[in-house]
Amino acid sequence: MGNGKLLHGGDYNPEQWLKSPDILKRDLELMRKARVNLVTLGVFSWSMLEPEEGKYDLDWLGEIIDNLYAQGIMVDLATPSGAKPAWLVQKYPEVQRVGADRVRELYGNRHSHCYTSPVYREKVRAIDQALARRFRVHPGIVMWHVSNELGGECHCELCQAKFREWLKEKYATLDRLNEAWNSAFWSHIYSDWSQIESPAPHGEGAMHGLVLDWKRFVTSRTLDFYRMERDAVRELIPEAKFTVNMMYRFDGLDYAKFAPDLDIISWDDYPTWHKAGESDEDICLKSAMMHDFFYSLKGKPFWMMESSPSMTNWQPVSKVKKPGVQMLSGLNAVAHGADAVMYFQWRQSRGAVEKFHGAVVGHDGREESRVFCETAELGKALEQLAPLAGVPREREAAIVHDQESKWAMEGSQGPRNIGLGYWDEVMLHYRALQKNAVTVDFIGQDGDLSGYKLIVCPMLYMLREDFAEKLRGFVAKGGTLVLTYWSGVADETDLCRIGDTPFGLTDVLGLRRLEIDGMYEGEKRRCVSAVAGERAEAYGSVLCEVAKSETAKPILVYAEDFFKGAPAVCVNRYGRGRAYYLATRFEPDFYSGLYRGLASSLFDLPITTPLPDGVLPARRGDWLFLQNTSGRTATVMRRRLQPYGTLIVNLKTKEKLIF
Amino acid sequence: MGNGKLLHGGDYNPEQWLKSPDILKRDLELMRKARVNLVTLGVFSWSMLEPEEGKYDLDWLGEIIDNLYAQGIMVDLATPSGAKPAWLVQKYPEVQRVGADRVRELYGNRHSHCYTSPVYREKVRAIDQALARRFRVHPGIVMWHVSNELGGECHCELCQAKFREWLKEKYATLDRLNEAWNSAFWSHIYSDWSQIESPAPHGEGAMHGLVLDWKRFVTSRTLDFYRMERDAVRELIPEAKFTVNMMYRFDGLDYAKFAPDLDIISWDDYPTWHKAGESDEDICLKSAMMHDFFYSLKGKPFWMMESSPSMTNWQPVSKVKKPGVQMLSGLNAVAHGADAVMYFQWRQSRGAVEKFHGAVVGHDGREESRVFCETAELGKALEQLAPLAGVPREREAAIVHDQESKWAMEGSQGPRNIGLGYWDEVMLHYRALQKNAVTVDFIGQDGDLSGYKLIVCPMLYMLREDFAEKLRGFVAKGGTLVLTYWSGVADETDLCRIGDTPFGLTDVLGLRRLEIDGMYEGEKRRCVSAVAGERAEAYGSVLCEVAKSETAKPILVYAEDFFKGAPAVCVNRYGRGRAYYLATRFEPDFYSGLYRGLASSLFDLPITTPLPDGVLPARRGDWLFLQNTSGRTATVMRRRLQPYGTLIVNLKTKEKLIF
Amino acid sequence: MGNGKLLHGGDYNPEQWLKSPDILKRDLELMRKARVNLVTLGVFSWSMLEPEEGKYDLDWLGEIIDNLYAQGIMVDLATPSGAKPAWLVQKYPEVQRVGADRVRELYGNRHSHCYTSPVYREKVRAIDQALARRFRVHPGIVMWHVSNELGGECHCELCQAKFREWLKEKYATLDRLNEAWNSAFWSHIYSDWSQIESPAPHGEGAMHGLVLDWKRFVTSRTLDFYRMERDAVRELIPEAKFTVNMMYRFDGLDYAKFAPDLDIISWDDYPTWHKAGESDEDICLKSAMMHDFFYSLKGKPFWMMESSPSMTNWQPVSKVKKPGVQMLSGLNAVAHGADAVMYFQWRQSRGAVEKFHGAVVGHDGREESRVFCETAELGKALEQLAPLAGVPREREAAIVHDQESKWAMEGSQGPRNIGLGYWDEVMLHYRALQKNAVTVDFIGQDGDLSGYKLIVCPMLYMLREDFAEKLRGFVAKGGTLVLTYWSGVADETDLCRIGDTPFGLTDVLGLRRLEIDGMYEGEKRRCVSAVAGERAEAYGSVLCEVAKSETAKPILVYAEDFFKGAPAVCVNRYGRGRAYYLATRFEPDFYSGLYRGLASSLFDLPITTPLPDGVLPARRGDWLFLQNTSGRTATVMRRRLQPYGTLIVNLKTKEKLIF
Repeated sequence: MGNGKLLHGGDYNPEQWLKSPDILKRDLELMRKARVNLVTLGVFSWSMLEPEEGKYDLDWLGEIIDNLYAQGIMVDLATPSGAKPAWLVQKYPEVQRVGADRVRELYGNRHSHCYTSPVYREKVRAIDQALARRFRVHPGIVMWHVSNELGGECHCELCQAKFREWLKEKYATLDRLNEAWNSAFWSHIYSDWSQIESPAPHGEGAMHGLVLDWKRFVTSRTLDFYRMERDAVRELIPEAKFTVNMMYRFDGLDYAKFAPDLDIISWDDYPTWHKAGESDEDICLKSAMMHDFFYSLKGKPFWMMESSPSMTNWQPVSKVKKPGVQMLSGLNAVAHGADAVMYFQWRQSRGAVEKFHGAVVGHDGREESRVFCETAELGKALEQLAPLAGVPREREAAIVHDQESKWAMEGSQGPRNIGLGYWDEVMLHYRALQKNAVTVDFIGQDGDLSGYKLIVCPMLYMLREDFAEKLRGFVAKGGTLVLTYWSGVADETDLCRIGDTPFGLTDVLGLRRLEIDGMYEGEKRRCVSAVAGERAEAYGSVLCEVAKSETAKPILVYAEDFFKGAPAVCVNRYGRGRAYYLATRFEPDFYSGLYRGLASSLFDLPITTPLPDGVLPARRGDWLFLQNTSGRTATVMRRRLQPYGTLIVNLKTKEKLIF
Repeated sequence: MGNGKLLHGGDYNPEQWLKSPDILKRDLELMRKARVNLVTLGVFSWSMLEPEEGKYDLDWLGEIIDNLYAQGIMVDLATPSGAKPAWLVQKYPEVQRVGADRVRELYGNRHSHCYTSPVYREKVRAIDQALARRFRVHPGIVMWHVSNELGGECHCELCQAKFREWLKEKYATLDRLNEAWNSAFWSHIYSDWSQIESPAPHGEGAMHGLVLDWKRFVTSRTLDFYRMERDAVRELIPEAKFTVNMMYRFDGLDYAKFAPDLDIISWDDYPTWHKAGESDEDICLKSAMMHDFFYSLKGKPFWMMESSPSMTNWQPVSKVKKPGVQMLSGLNAVAHGADAVMYFQWRQSRGAVEKFHGAVVGHDGREESRVFCETAELGKALEQLAPLAGVPREREAAIVHDQESKWAMEGSQGPRNIGLGYWDEVMLHYRALQKNAVTVDFIGQDGDLSGYKLIVCPMLYMLREDFAEKLRGFVAKGGTLVLTYWSGVADETDLCRIGDTPFGLTDVLGLRRLEIDGMYEGEKRRCVSAVAGERAEAYGSVLCEVAKSETAKPILVYAEDFFKGAPAVCVNRYGRGRAYYLATRFEPDFYSGLYRGLASSLFDLPITTPLPDGVLPARRGDWLFLQNTSGRTATVMRRRLQPYGTLIVNLKTKEKLIF
Repeated sequence: MGNGKLLHGGDYNPEQWLKSPDILKRDLELMRKARVNLVTLGVFSWSMLEPEEGKYDLDWLGEIIDNLYAQGIMVDLATPSGAKPAWLVQKYPEVQRVGADRVRELYGNRHSHCYTSPVYREKVRAIDQALARRFRVHPGIVMWHVSNELGGECHCELCQAKFREWLKEKYATLDRLNEAWNSAFWSHIYSDWSQIESPAPHGEGAMHGLVLDWKRFVTSRTLDFYRMERDAVRELIPEAKFTVNMMYRFDGLDYAKFAPDLDIISWDDYPTWHKAGESDEDICLKSAMMHDFFYSLKGKPFWMMESSPSMTNWQPVSKVKKPGVQMLSGLNAVAHGADAVMYFQWRQSRGAVEKFHGAVVGHDGREESRVFCETAELGKALEQLAPLAGVPREREAAIVHDQESKWAMEGSQGPRNIGLGYWDEVMLHYRALQKNAVTVDFIGQDGDLSGYKLIVCPMLYMLREDFAEKLRGFVAKGGTLVLTYWSGVADETDLCRIGDTPFGLTDVLGLRRLEIDGMYEGEKRRCVSAVAGERAEAYGSVLCEVAKSETAKPILVYAEDFFKGAPAVCVNRYGRGRAYYLATRFEPDFYSGLYRGLASSLFDLPITTPLPDGVLPARRGDWLFLQNTSGRTATVMRRRLQPYGTLIVNLKTKEKLIF
């Protein structure tokens, strides 16, 4: 879609400025200066496109698209279902969502529609087809952007009925459902499908299997709605391409289920740059991790669909990006596989909720503003980096992320209700790997393990039988597995595994789990080397699992509490490979050590000498990015990097670029 | 109304004691001892005045009023609309408020009526007129106290309809309303008036213009209800005087809109004396600031309608006032323009929610109690200070407070959602001025600037065009303006100003705003003197605005971060005056320095040497009050002040009084 | 019921495993190994016992009971009303509770039924009688366990009507009710019974008398429901015995009202062993205090009906019990009067909300697990301790706990809304007494004072007239009374006492209260010895009461603030006894000192030399328990105690047992 270019642009909402033709004209001029080649149009335009039911006014949009195209700017055209007109809700109140408290929402905000409502589906399909009909032959439209930041759930009667249908299809009989949910506990055996209700604060919340299935259903419902929109367009434009914009660590949907239905993965990245108490390196790594996550969904380049060129307005504190950070941020996305660097939004709104969200063009409209200048500079850089467009990443290591397992684990009561810190755990592994320039993918339990040398399973609570089998094969054939505490606990309906655990892997790991102890905030357990005389030391926290080693060789053992001597880290040879087991959560240094060793033995690393503090590596194809995330200058490969500067090296040609 | 006296008394609720005639008799005796000359009657009497619908029993009240009058005690007679009888709600449930969640309140607590309800208005009018008819010729009634602590809002269908009417009157066309609210954002264009709903947690909340107009509407509705009550009485007693009791930093109403309709401003003052972590000086200043605020509403003496002679029962911790603090508190009110010092309540209730709220007469009924003795002493002091009754204050400096601007600023998302600390900012300016014995008024954007030499605009986010014009004229003619960051950002419907800002004042200030950076709790930016070699230093926090100076002369500049060198404080000559610009929030010392300089050059100050720690000055006419807010003795003007003691000096006669 | 044995066992929920006969068989085998002799059956079995309305299937349960009995295991048979089948709620939605927000609950969780609902009562009665009919002659059933952890309240129209009936019965006339609630305040006079509604977040909450009566009504309603169930069984089995399982510091019910209707008191003990920031000694004392509390309800041995053999799943952090703690915990219960040590639950559930709650048999099913081994050891110990079964405790000291007084005090606004810390206050007295091996009972105001030498009244806010009379007699006849601040404030409907206080005891105490000052978190007032030259010192916090001593002799006086010199602790001789008054809350050391003195002068203590840190004494009949609550070894009576070990000494025979 990029036609050999990296894409640059953002959400463009001209419907807010239709009465100011001078501003619309100025937009085109400024876009040229900022080297914009793609804009997202129409996200919030429904009211303007269909001011009255069934009366479409698409001409203004056509004119905008034509003007953009005339200037070489392509369009990512949104279906407008993410924000609906007032008349629609007034006439059909049933299109509004019903909350878990069973109260129907009033008109307001953005997302508040029921994904089941036949009326809503009909109206969305109609406007989508009106757009498709009108713009089917326009060469400027390169992508369809379905709705906006999908999310939310509805508990209306129609959705309840769909939920019951979904359950019937899944379980066929109530007997199986009762079994799967262990509904005998607390005497909750269902004797009729219609007794089942979605979770509610004043109703069910304790039946873990139900709660988990509800989350799955919400994903399935949302995906169904997406498909309805996609098909509405595809009927008229068979060759149309589709994306939806996803979100950072979003817990409401299992994005993995969407990937096969999308042509391009895209997501909205809003890091909290310069947050007090957190280093910019860590903030950068958090975004990088999500870039890798979204790259992995289809295993191919993605679009960073939104980002703020300056501050956001919804974070607790709105901090502006320091000079250079926009470049850092944009190139970081590219380094991790982005083919597009896009902003929300092009021109700052005058009023309403996001009026203080950063934009390329601010309220003062000045092109000499710092934000505009930095945007234009980044635009120039992206042109220079055109050869990177479409370039894929290596397959080296994979971290297993399974959204359903996360839901199940976090939906359970115990062993630590003040928080399990799932993403913190994931980050510990990711950070250590990434800082060693290992390319990290994120895969689910349906994922393909081929090509990877290292698989990391952080807290894989709901380890499936088939995946355990895959892991067994992976290790047997020479792969390296790292698996942590609180893995292999429950099955797909959150029934605990009966018998020894970690389920399915006790022989691969050479041990079985005995107990797990929750730790209070700040509580720690000292661990020491299992080899007498060696001085290694680490501290366990959050959860301390006690296991009984059978064949596993301890590396670290607990040095405190009644589980003193039990393995804290151990390794087991299995077939031609090795399986590491981590019984608790350590401080970051531990992972640095562990993965430095593993990375250097498993991979052909592009850098082998330590990088200066704050400099992060990332590799995409032949290109190695070295990014200075700190506010100080740094020297890498004998080049001086400005604060937040980036050095890009072509590993083949040795070409070097500095930004 | 004071007839040359300062007033002393409080809320008297004899309906709780009608079955104990001995107690009622004892009340009169104790009132004489405490030198009470005014009581508020009837606030919570409706159930007793109209035990059944339409059946009035006013005789008991008449007898109370007669007995009081016989003893020279005047009455501030309440209309009882602030707390209604159970029968009324039972028979007409529609008089109850509907919350933002669209749930109608049940009977309970105090304020829970709809200001629109025709039935409620009819019943209130009837009881008000019954009272007026009965007591119209009673010489003891000197004031009508309409309802009680007005506040709250109703979202019932009747109120929704009124809101739409109000909007129609304001905007005439939906086009104008859509424009004013920038409703194109998020596709919220209204195509029918009936689509508009008041804000709701499960509905609209993101349309800033709507939320702001709703708040204005609530003030208008409440004022309309007040007028209905006032007119009910006035029809029968054309010469009646009216007040409503207002509250500390109350955010629910724009009190400025009420002032023209009131004869006397009154308010309820409940400082948190002896609060851990806060000095009594600051606590005293907070009350003083509100006294000045309420004085300014009409620019004339006000009544402190309620205060606790001891502890409150509703603060997180109920602390008793230390010996002397009641005197300090009462005289502080007088110093800042009060003509009445009143308590809630005269006799402590036996039961229900306020039974542990302090009262002049406690549960033990003893007149030797510390509270009673201190009340009686204050009564004596007020008699001595009779010459102060009606004496007005000087016009020196004014702080601009605009409730609508505050609503708009705080209703916006960004730039610092963890809090903007509006009142903290105001307090920094007030404290520094007040401690220099400058008399400070609070004016709105409709205010009259004449007579002031100094105008301070702290965070005047919604600076109106006409007020910018006034300020321009004020400075041009020689006035001194101090304006802070986050001023002149938005217009009256919270649309951001397009073009350079601070709106309307860039030439007066000699600069334009570039960016604004939110600061985390505890984060600070160092600022230093703009003059090389000078050692001034200060720290910016909360929000750091970056401006580009055109003609303004920097005084302090940022010394850190990417905005290093940008002006933190500057001054610009404009016409015959000067305009100061403060780009961030500093620590208190900075303001002491700034305003010590400004005060000594602009005003003829009654004191010029520094006062001991904890001693606060205040001036009313020829009278200078010097109050020791500390628990230690202090020496001022060669007089020794006890802990919490007050020295009053007549600047003309040199007469000195010590309390 | 124990037939000379201590009971050991727990909740057994075989309905979760009916499809796995091997597991049921294995259960019997493991129970034998763990020396289980009692299980609770049927708590969550309703769905299985009555799968369709009116169709009972009790055979599976009969078989289980028979199998248990064959092995000598007795049954505590639950009525299943604590968790109802889905079909019941589907068919009769009116059985569900209505919350204070007036929203009816949906099916879910456990407790959600209305105690008034005629349908629910009918269905419960039917299943109870079906069980009674079937098992009336079964010798294995030794106890009926009515429902489960009774609690909650319903605000449906039926309950409102019952509430009004209850009020009518209590007050007879509205006049009396209005008087009792002081409803004249805030004009809330009720003129019709139907105007009265239960408290609601959007309705009444400020009428303290109403709120208090509502809480009483809830207890009365719940007790009525219990009686209905009991009578359903008793009709068919006149000799049946009954218990309900109660909870730790449960505030929802006045358990004292239940005691006369129960045959055995039982409760569920879930201490937070090894909680960060709290010593295991204190955690043990908290359980011990509740054991004593529940013992006192009937003044005879009780059952610890539930406890976790390992972790819980619902506390913020799930910590496993360290080795030995299960023994410590079980023997602590016995020491304080338990005749049964029971667990929840026997076998860990596979799924649903409590799947991670500890159980005797875990998911891995292994009998070599630490939990199983420790359970079996405790089983053995309990067999050894059979002579303790049924042995009562001494009458030495009593702490007065009155649930209604607590409700009233905590329901009031002021004097410290951030918390009064009632249980903390109680604990200070309890800890000091208990550590001196004094046997402590908890009695209400209906309690019998005979036999006690020391009565402690911590914060007895609502001191009744009759109880004041009893205390007067108690002291006059030589008893020792300790009474704290905030006692004798209000009467039974929470009307403040008019006149001097502490009500009814000013002469016994030799003083009267003047004021009470709330203290912020961390605020303290220094107190010193009243005798010049003596060096005693203590710090008051939370609330500082100021009293005027008439005949009382000060021991400590305040040394700070305006109440400097006022008594902080004093003692008054009255008749042949003495009354101590504590004006504030001190740190723990103060109480150690106070009660060491009192204990050694009043009681014949079984130990007189100080015990090592962490060792707690407790006495039951002739048996003295010395328990090491620390993780270190300790030496007592020349015996070495392991961490968490227990020494039991027969004071008569000198026999010593170590566990």
